[in-house]
Amino acid sequence: MSLFPLDKIKPEKEEEGRYYNSHYFNYDGQQQVRLEYRFPKCSLTADCVVFGFDGKDLHILLIERGIEAFKGMWALPGGFMNPNETIEECAERELWEETKVRDVYKEQFGVFSAIDRDPRCRVVTVGFVALVRKSDFEVIGGSDAKKAQWFKEDELPPLAFDHEEIVKAARNHLKERMRIEPIAFNLLNEKFSISELQQVYEAIKGENYDRRNFYRKMISSGYLQNEGKSEEPTPNRRPDLFSFDTKQFKEDETDNPSQTDSLLF
Amino acid sequence: MSLFPLDKIKPEKEEEGRYYNSHYFNYDGQQQVRLEYRFPKCSLTADCVVFGFDGKDLHILLIERGIEAFKGMWALPGGFMNPNETIEECAERELWEETKVRDVYKEQFGVFSAIDRDPRCRVVTVGFVALVRKSDFEVIGGSDAKKAQWFKEDELPPLAFDHEEIVKAARNHLKERMRIEPIAFNLLNEKFSISELQQVYEAIKGENYDRRNFYRKMISSGYLQNEGKSEEPTPNRRPDLFSFDTKQFKEDETDNPSQTDSLLF
Repeated sequence: MSLFPLDKIKPEKEEEGRYYNSHYFNYDGQQQVRLEYRFPKCSLTADCVVFGFDGKDLHILLIERGIEAFKGMWALPGGFMNPNETIEECAERELWEETKVRDVYKEQFGVFSAIDRDPRCRVVTVGFVALVRKSDFEVIGGSDAKKAQWFKEDELPPLAFDHEEIVKAARNHLKERMRIEPIAFNLLNEKFSISELQQVYEAIKGENYDRRNFYRKMISSGYLQNEGKSEEPTPNRRPDLFSFDTKQFKEDETDNPSQTDSLLF
Repeated sequence: MSLFPLDKIKPEKEEEGRYYNSHYFNYDGQQQVRLEYRFPKCSLTADCVVFGFDGKDLHILLIERGIEAFKGMWALPGGFMNPNETIEECAERELWEETKVRDVYKEQFGVFSAIDRDPRCRVVTVGFVALVRKSDFEVIGGSDAKKAQWFKEDELPPLAFDHEEIVKAARNHLKERMRIEPIAFNLLNEKFSISELQQVYEAIKGENYDRRNFYRKMISSGYLQNEGKSEEPTPNRRPDLFSFDTKQFKEDETDNPSQTDSLLF
């Protein structure tokens, strides 16, 4: 179908705050229409990279796509932004619809806008990253998702769209946040041993730390309060438990930021 | 104009990879048309917060809008993403068209998607931030910009759209980057004095450092090479000049990241 040259179309009307051009003409005896917006349009989606920590490893929450494109493949939970919501609201809604996970702190980490990244139409996506305790959520597939499931981050299946690239960018973002914020403590019980803390740091950073140096650095930070011995029966001697002094940390964050760096790697 | 109920409209055709619905009907004797995309659409823009350092203070590059909306007001350089470009290409093109600044390293720092942020239509914008030496660029207004001009960051005029919020977010992003990367060195000559270095750190962080502590921390970092006395005639004694050991820094970044933290505040 050959359409009327776009440069002959002048702006005509405004409706609901949207300007567009429309032009009617006859082509092969059929009446045709071309409707053209004044500003270029695309579709916008939010995609969520939810990392779940199980005490040892990081996992990523994926859905099996129940619709085209990439039907049957695994993908990040996400979907199209509606006209009546912000991109944050879209991320929250889509994650809930597709996995029944909600009320998770998420932050943007990047916009992915390669022209052909979606075979359906021009779609630009905003990536959101979250870090949770895996056991806090029961994931259930729904909406456009046939299934929802956790995968160990180093055992992901092939992913739809450019989602492998998005996961990689989310992983880097997480490591960077760790150098600015003590995000590890959100993944622990209120009382934890230093070796549990080290597990979290190592899982997020993807590298191992020397046990003694880690212990020394954490204790000397001044933010860990000794809460006595663990009550759990263990094969070795019962470890000391600690809690994180959130109040002191928050005070120092404004008054004495270089002190808070003692927690960061 | 009342249009045909949307839920009665079924997908009809696909053209140029875009699915849409169209429906013709008679209304008040006039033929009307409703053209509806399968997925919701919006317009996407890129806005650039370019910080320019003049040796003492940070400035921000603004344009005076030559068109509606907010005609005559100052705003960030930026504009609509075309269908044939990524959002990064859009940022590069718009900055060039409106200010004649180009080839500047920019990074995304956030997506702004409040529903009513643009009076013309639903527009979501992606913020880009850059940090340059102000004297490296001659800025010249063009395209949709009547004028382009630097403003001291604490003396900005009222801004169009939600650009004040965007500037604030960019400012925070810059401070955060400073805790991860030694961005200060990009703003200095190859050889610089410690007090020039301190000026950059203070401008970016927006706070003052103790002169002696700053000196000690920088020298002990191991990344500054003494290049001898300044040749510049000064009222006081001529200061030592230093260069930044980029090679050593890059090696340590992979092998010994905690060493590189010595440069960060």
